[in-house]
Amino acid sequence: MRITPREELEYRIGKLQRFMAEAGLDAVIILQNADLFYFTGTIQNGTLYVPVEGEPLYMVRKDFPRARMESGLKEVVPFRSMKDIPPLLAEYGYRQPVRIGMEFDVLPVSFFERYRTVFPEASFADATPLVRRVRMVKSKYEIHILQDAAVQVEKVCQRACEVIRAGMTDLELAAELEFIARKEGHQGLVRMRAFNAELFYAHVFSGTDTAVPAYVDTPLGGLGLNPSFGQGAGYKRIEPNEPIIVDFAGCVDGYLVDQTRVFAIGGISAQLRQAYDDMLKVQARMMELTAPGVSWGDVYETCLALAVDLGYADSFMGNRGAQVSFIGHGIGIEIDEYPFIAKGFKEMLFEPGMVFAFEPKVVFPGEGAIGIENTFYLSHFEGLKQLTCSSQELTIL
Amino acid sequence: MRITPREELEYRIGKLQRFMAEAGLDAVIILQNADLFYFTGTIQNGTLYVPVEGEPLYMVRKDFPRARMESGLKEVVPFRSMKDIPPLLAEYGYRQPVRIGMEFDVLPVSFFERYRTVFPEASFADATPLVRRVRMVKSKYEIHILQDAAVQVEKVCQRACEVIRAGMTDLELAAELEFIARKEGHQGLVRMRAFNAELFYAHVFSGTDTAVPAYVDTPLGGLGLNPSFGQGAGYKRIEPNEPIIVDFAGCVDGYLVDQTRVFAIGGISAQLRQAYDDMLKVQARMMELTAPGVSWGDVYETCLALAVDLGYADSFMGNRGAQVSFIGHGIGIEIDEYPFIAKGFKEMLFEPGMVFAFEPKVVFPGEGAIGIENTFYLSHFEGLKQLTCSSQELTIL
Repeated sequence: MRITPREELEYRIGKLQRFMAEAGLDAVIILQNADLFYFTGTIQNGTLYVPVEGEPLYMVRKDFPRARMESGLKEVVPFRSMKDIPPLLAEYGYRQPVRIGMEFDVLPVSFFERYRTVFPEASFADATPLVRRVRMVKSKYEIHILQDAAVQVEKVCQRACEVIRAGMTDLELAAELEFIARKEGHQGLVRMRAFNAELFYAHVFSGTDTAVPAYVDTPLGGLGLNPSFGQGAGYKRIEPNEPIIVDFAGCVDGYLVDQTRVFAIGGISAQLRQAYDDMLKVQARMMELTAPGVSWGDVYETCLALAVDLGYADSFMGNRGAQVSFIGHGIGIEIDEYPFIAKGFKEMLFEPGMVFAFEPKVVFPGEGAIGIENTFYLSHFEGLKQLTCSSQELTIL
Repeated sequence: MRITPREELEYRIGKLQRFMAEAGLDAVIILQNADLFYFTGTIQNGTLYVPVEGEPLYMVRKDFPRARMESGLKEVVPFRSMKDIPPLLAEYGYRQPVRIGMEFDVLPVSFFERYRTVFPEASFADATPLVRRVRMVKSKYEIHILQDAAVQVEKVCQRACEVIRAGMTDLELAAELEFIARKEGHQGLVRMRAFNAELFYAHVFSGTDTAVPAYVDTPLGGLGLNPSFGQGAGYKRIEPNEPIIVDFAGCVDGYLVDQTRVFAIGGISAQLRQAYDDMLKVQARMMELTAPGVSWGDVYETCLALAVDLGYADSFMGNRGAQVSFIGHGIGIEIDEYPFIAKGFKEMLFEPGMVFAFEPKVVFPGEGAIGIENTFYLSHFEGLKQLTCSSQELTIL
C-alpha cells in the first residue's frame, strides 16, 4: 500500500491552478472519487476546494480521521453539510469565488443544483478538460505503480497458460484469472469515467463469442452472462483451434494497465494468424510515429489507413456497423483518460509522461476476433517505452 | 440467462406512465444502465423515450441487432446521434414534449445540457422518484431471480466454512469467496446508484479491521488494499477468537441480494456474542413491525430506539462519529433502491412486493464489529418473507 507523497499532491494541485488561471476560474470543486484520489491521496467522502492561488481545502464528511491519515494535503477539515462550505471558506480566508469549475462529465444534475444554491452569486464552468490535462501526464511515482500493475497482468497471462483447457467455459477461465489477480493485490474495482461505462476485470472469451459486439465503447464486447451486463465472459465452452482472448486490466494501488493477449489450443486459422501479424504491424507503426509534438489524431489516422491498406476496412476495431472510432486510450486511475488516439483530436499533441493503451484488433463475425493491446509510456528521455511485458507471440497450447 | 418477458416490461412501463400522468410529465427519457435494463430488458447504448401514453421508443446506438434480440419492447430502432431524436419521434407520431423527466440523480451535467439543446422548448424535471417508485415493487418474476441470488450467497457461506483458517489474510478469504460466486454465475459488477458509491462483491474482514470506518455509506467499512478504494478486505491476517465478517452481495441475472454472516475460529468475546444476540432482537422487532401501510421511518425509529435501549447508542450502525442514519435499504438491480429504512421517510409506506436488506450492526473500535443482514420480501399474502437463507447461528469453526 502506498500513501501518495505530499510533494506529488502539491505538484498536481499547482499544475491545476496554472490551468485554472489560464481558464479564468477562481476555484475548482473536486468531488468524484478518481479525481479526489488523484488530488488528495484518498477518497474519503468530501469536497476538495481548490482556489486559483493558495492551499486547497479538503472538507471531509466521512471518515475525517481516515482522510487526515491518508491525505498529504495540509488543510483537511471535517464538515457536515454543504451549508457549512461558505462559512468554512470564510474562516480559512478564501475570497468568495465568482467563477467555479466542476466536473460536468461526471457530476449528476441534482448534485450540481445543490452546489449552485451554496454559491448563488457564482457562475459555473466545466473543469473536466483541465482535470484531464493534469492527470494525463504521469510522474515517476505513478510510472512505478504502473510497472507493478504490468507485472500483475503478466502473472495473469502465465496463469492462463496453466489453466486453459478444452471444455472449460469462458466464465471458468475468467474466474481463474480474476482469482489470481485478486490474490496479487488487484482492488477488484476498475474505474471508467464515461457515463454508463462499466467494466469488470477483463474481457475473457473464445471463438465466435470474441466477435459478439456489445454496448460498451470497446472494439470487442462479448455476450456476458446476461443482458443486464452484456459484456465479457459467457458460458461458451473453449474448443481447440479458436482464438481465446484475454483482455485484462491489471490494477495496483489504484493504477491500471491494459493488456490483451491471444491463446489457442492447437492453433488458429491462417486468416486469424495473418490478421494477428498485421495488428502487430499497426502497433509497430504507432510506435514509430508517437513522439512529443505529434498529434493524437494523426497517429489514429495513419494507423487506421494502414489497417485499411492491409485489408481490414470492414473488420478493424469492431464488427462492421459497430466499429469504434479509436485505437488507443490514456489510462491511469481510470481506463478512459487522455490521450485519445481517436478520430478528431488533431489539435491535441503527445507530451512526455503520457501513458496509453493501444489496441489494434479485428473482428470476423462468425469466426472470431484477434489483436493485441499494450500499455505504453512516452518517457522524457528514452522515447516510447512499453509497460506491459508479456510475450507478444500467440500462445499455442 | 433470462430474457425479460414482454408482459413484464409492459407492466413496468404502464406503471411509470401512470406516475408520469400524476406528475404532469409528457415524457420520460431513460438513459442509465440499471433503469434501461429494468424498462427495456437490455443495456445496449441508447435512449429510451417513454411518452405519457402509447408505446415507448428505444433508440439504440450500439449494438442495435443485439438490443433488438434482447429487448421485448415493440419499438426498437437504430439511431446515430442525439440530433436524430426529434425527427425519429416525429416519424413515430409522437407529439413534441413540453415537460420531460430525466434521471437527475445519475445524469451528468454535460449530458443533460446536450439533451436540453435537443428539446430547446421543453422544461425538465427530475424523474428519479418516479423511476424509484416503479422499481421498488418487485414482480413474481423478479422474486424468482432474487431467490436464485439467495442460493448463490448461501454457497458462498458454505465455502467460507471450508476455507477459513488462521493465518490467511482477509484478502485471501475474499478472493476465495469471490471466486466461488463468480463460478456460480455472479456477473462481478455490483451496481450502486448514488454518486461516488462503489462496491465490489463484498465486505470480508476480520477482528479490528471490521471496525475501520470508510467513505462509503455503510455501517462497516474496512481498510481495503489501498486509499484509492479504501473499503473491504485488506492484508490483515485472520486469528482465532475474533469476528470474521462476510457481507456479500449475491447476483444472478442482474439482481442482487445482500447477506451478512459472522464466522470465528474458536469463539468470540462475551461482549460481541451478546451484541450479536441483541442484533437478532432488532431484526426480530423489524419483522414484527413491517407490514403494508407501516412507514419506513417508523420502523427505523423503533428499531433504533430498541438498539439504544439495549445499550448501543454509541456503537449501533457504525463507529461513534461515523454512524449511518439507516438500518435497511431496498435492493434489486441496485444495492441502494427504495425503500430506505432510514431517518426521515415517515411519509413513505411499505407495500406488498417490496424487497429490502436489513442490517443491524454494532462497532466497537479496537475490538471489532458484529451484526446480521438478510434480504426480505414483503409478500402479497404471507407477510414478510426472508429471501436469504443461510443459518443465522454464529459459525464457530
